[in-house]
Amino acid sequence: MTQWSIDPIKKIDESDRLQAQEKQDQLTKPQGSLGLLESIAITLSALQKTTTPNVNEAQIIIYAADHGIAQEGVSAFPQAVTAEMVKNFSAGGAAISVLSAQHKLPLQVINLGLVTELPEMKSVEHKIISKGTNSFLQQSAMTETQLTQVFDEAKHQVEQAKDNDCQLLIMGEMGIANTSTASALVCALESIEPEILTGTGTGLDSDGLEHKIQVIKKAIAFHKENNKTHFSSPMKILQTLGGYEIAALTASYIRAAQLGIVSIVDGFICSVAALFALRINPDCRPWLIFSHQSAEKGHKKVLELIDAKPLLEFNMRLGEGSGAALVYPLIRSACLLQNEMASFASASVSEKLD
Amino acid sequence: MTQWSIDPIKKIDESDRLQAQEKQDQLTKPQGSLGLLESIAITLSALQKTTTPNVNEAQIIIYAADHGIAQEGVSAFPQAVTAEMVKNFSAGGAAISVLSAQHKLPLQVINLGLVTELPEMKSVEHKIISKGTNSFLQQSAMTETQLTQVFDEAKHQVEQAKDNDCQLLIMGEMGIANTSTASALVCALESIEPEILTGTGTGLDSDGLEHKIQVIKKAIAFHKENNKTHFSSPMKILQTLGGYEIAALTASYIRAAQLGIVSIVDGFICSVAALFALRINPDCRPWLIFSHQSAEKGHKKVLELIDAKPLLEFNMRLGEGSGAALVYPLIRSACLLQNEMASFASASVSEKLD
Repeated sequence: MTQWSIDPIKKIDESDRLQAQEKQDQLTKPQGSLGLLESIAITLSALQKTTTPNVNEAQIIIYAADHGIAQEGVSAFPQAVTAEMVKNFSAGGAAISVLSAQHKLPLQVINLGLVTELPEMKSVEHKIISKGTNSFLQQSAMTETQLTQVFDEAKHQVEQAKDNDCQLLIMGEMGIANTSTASALVCALESIEPEILTGTGTGLDSDGLEHKIQVIKKAIAFHKENNKTHFSSPMKILQTLGGYEIAALTASYIRAAQLGIVSIVDGFICSVAALFALRINPDCRPWLIFSHQSAEKGHKKVLELIDAKPLLEFNMRLGEGSGAALVYPLIRSACLLQNEMASFASASVSEKLD
Repeated sequence: MTQWSIDPIKKIDESDRLQAQEKQDQLTKPQGSLGLLESIAITLSALQKTTTPNVNEAQIIIYAADHGIAQEGVSAFPQAVTAEMVKNFSAGGAAISVLSAQHKLPLQVINLGLVTELPEMKSVEHKIISKGTNSFLQQSAMTETQLTQVFDEAKHQVEQAKDNDCQLLIMGEMGIANTSTASALVCALESIEPEILTGTGTGLDSDGLEHKIQVIKKAIAFHKENNKTHFSSPMKILQTLGGYEIAALTASYIRAAQLGIVSIVDGFICSVAALFALRINPDCRPWLIFSHQSAEKGHKKVLELIDAKPLLEFNMRLGEGSGAALVYPLIRSACLLQNEMASFASASVSEKLD
């Protein structure tokens, strides 16, 4: 069952926000002069119902899965790379591994279904639903049961994090062809033309991009014509066009919010998962921090749909949760500043003139 | 003598940049997918003449000084705050103190001339040139000798940092009324009207802002009419309208570049100092990383004059080097990613399809 995904999420109590704002206004700085850092600290305070917000207990989860649609030649890299990169995450050689080490954050990779069989390895859990999704070109990517399995696995992961007192989750994804999946998902959910949402992913040339757009167009047309229920709800769209890792991210953002854990959202793929999370359970919105504006074409549009202004615009387009991990120290700074700065009174600093 | 400030600065060797680019292109990610982080790492590589750039040895210097122009009522805070904040830096209660602790970076405050006498205290060096500058409304802010003293003190500070193997300097400022000084400096240097460059600083209301603009206008008119040499060079403008901390920053950016140390430039005041550094010795440009777009009105214009795109736009306007310290972990990430990621070959990851 995926019914838990619409369970209630705690709403912000405005009095908590006000208390944090009052605290900020007593710190030794002109009021408002820490800009966005103040807003972040105040929102986190209200979410955590404290005036001393804390994100020290954080961890990284990467969901990995293969995509049937990769068979249609929509990616610049071969499908084998999904598994090769999972090995690379485990061995510490990927971008997210380096950021995980820099910030001393534990990294866990959940293999939800790779085409390639992998042995046991450090920091990787094999929770295989099937050897990749089906190509969604002329059939559903997954069954309802498979979607439920993904949601349950994600729920389990987040609950495990909660058991470890996790306050903040940095989640990422790995799955060759998943920008095609992500674009198709948003096109179906929001009735947007694939041209608007489809980019070059890991580096297609213009012919490759045109082919990718046509594949997505054909797939959407097929499902529209053949079975109206395929696009009847966000959940059905996830089943029809989704990837295991994207569905897991959607479920994780929701479950994290339900359990009082903040999530940092990475780039295009993760934002698409966040969009689905918001369409399923809109109350998860304040629990999501959007990290960066990706260079992938569709991201800007997805962020607009969510009304999200990301922290950085670094022209990144790697995925793996790399942008989300990059901004982690900025979120920590926001908390530390609110918690550890002196007040005008405690430091005997004169206040603003009347 | 300030003659050392035009001594040569090592230029980037394009072959060093190319080597770093080649290394980046072998790392396990689509080429270019780390965006700005790649550019930062490549530039740092070329500056340091290595393919493994490193900014681990970093430190924070805050120059503090009082401004005679504060007598004209141009600031929202009383002048006593300069000294009170120096105590706060020392006691660990200021924003920059918190960021210094977060990033485990040593913090040193150089008192170049406060109106208030201060006792010896932790992390503060008293190098007093005079008890604040003169009000530049109808006289020069400092003498030529005083400007030379500031330049020499800054040179000494940076050389000391170099002796400690410092690779990166985060510099900030404290000085009530120094947005007035900074605005006046740029107006005189670039012949821009004060309305364009003058903002609310620590929080003036609209009447306060109008008064501040009029003070700057009057001062510039006075010096223009009374002594043509006052604005005859960047150095003379610094002497006529400058503050000790701003002149020290200018000298420090130059000396750091001469010694092969990268500087992270903070907000409006620091960017004005950087502009003067560039007008005195343009070759320091690649050694400067601009951290954030401040909310202070004139900053955007100053960044345009320098052709600088800062890393963040967080709507901050605190000074103290806070924005520069905030982005430090991002610069470290750029280096660590280039140095520690696996290559396609070493991690046996398949490359892009033809």
